[in-house]
Amino acid sequence: MDKLNLSKHISSQFNEEIEQVRNHVMAMGGLIERQLFDALEAIANSDSELAQQVIQNDLKVNDWELQIDQECTRIIAKRQPAASDLRLIMAILKTIADLERIGDETRRIAKVALESFNSAQQDLLVNLDNLGRHVGQMLHDVLDAFARMDVEAALTVHKEDKKVDREYESITRQLMTYMIEDPRSIPKIMNVLWSARSLERIGDRCKNLSEYIIFFVKGKVVRHSSEETLEKEARS
Amino acid sequence: MDKLNLSKHISSQFNEEIEQVRNHVMAMGGLIERQLFDALEAIANSDSELAQQVIQNDLKVNDWELQIDQECTRIIAKRQPAASDLRLIMAILKTIADLERIGDETRRIAKVALESFNSAQQDLLVNLDNLGRHVGQMLHDVLDAFARMDVEAALTVHKEDKKVDREYESITRQLMTYMIEDPRSIPKIMNVLWSARSLERIGDRCKNLSEYIIFFVKGKVVRHSSEETLEKEARS
Repeated sequence: MDKLNLSKHISSQFNEEIEQVRNHVMAMGGLIERQLFDALEAIANSDSELAQQVIQNDLKVNDWELQIDQECTRIIAKRQPAASDLRLIMAILKTIADLERIGDETRRIAKVALESFNSAQQDLLVNLDNLGRHVGQMLHDVLDAFARMDVEAALTVHKEDKKVDREYESITRQLMTYMIEDPRSIPKIMNVLWSARSLERIGDRCKNLSEYIIFFVKGKVVRHSSEETLEKEARS
Repeated sequence: MDKLNLSKHISSQFNEEIEQVRNHVMAMGGLIERQLFDALEAIANSDSELAQQVIQNDLKVNDWELQIDQECTRIIAKRQPAASDLRLIMAILKTIADLERIGDETRRIAKVALESFNSAQQDLLVNLDNLGRHVGQMLHDVLDAFARMDVEAALTVHKEDKKVDREYESITRQLMTYMIEDPRSIPKIMNVLWSARSLERIGDRCKNLSEYIIFFVKGKVVRHSSEETLEKEARS
């Protein structure tokens, strides 16, 4: 906390409000991390009950987004924050929008667990699981970077997305080959493909989240920048 | 304009700033509408040059998002808007985030025009084009509703998304049937499927845009609400 210099506010109540909204973002992030983990578990164990639970829990994710959005709007209206306070609120508003979309993707992924797969198809799911664990680690790391507003950790997550993209492309090729060999499996395998795509999108969104951290700490918008520009700005 | 009661501000410069940012959102929206239209034209005419142009122009969409985002942040910091002014700024921030993502999807759609298709496959593209025109109309209508802050028009767009979803599902089934019959076409047809998915997502985002209009005019958050609740709130 000291790192963020939140203690500088004259009003201690303002401090508390900002602190609370940050805690709520962490709670929302924690819930989504668990959701992603549960969705992967549900697929690995063909656990349709757990999958249904993930689908249901997405409503809680949505509730968090609405609540934190309102908290931020109230702080803007009441406290008229400027400079880094305003930047934090703006970063949080963008963060929760991306987190909510990660929740949507996770709900879609969980639906794969409602299908039944034969043993050859089960083998294909192993790679989906690996991709899922990889993306889950990115999500964990970026939430951790957010908690500490750690630019270096955010940069690491940002770079990781390229690896996720390559892993996704390799899975896509593998699934397409399988479909060509066994065309009757197409409708079922398509669902696995959509899930892989959802995981790849979650990776993209983790990259977005890392950009909001850099924006808050450095006061520079690095969205749509090249990897080199981003690194330079983040370390300036 | 009068409808929005923007003339009530004591500072006429504040009026001008808000007016300018609204005009910029319309310009950004107009660019994206043209992008989507061009992407569909490029696919229909196998025009890879036009497709490349759409892909290039997405950078302009990104620039608009960054610019309008900064304009909004500056207004919040300088003018400390409250009540409906703040709501408008918040609605605009969410609107440009969704518009930028519509731009991303459009860029992905344009890439289909870089493939070459045989005549049987060309027939499949007709349905993609129909879905594209439908979604393009939704985008046009929601931007129009935004310009006039027209809640009824926003509600109409919101309802339209269900039809787009059904059209998307029908195309998906048709494409999967084709892939089962001609497995060698899978990699190529997959690209058409991704495009159909992108169009369906643009429909979802137009629905989001309509919710921000209702939020601004009615002061009520209707995201994640049922269709019935939304309609009740919008007309209350």
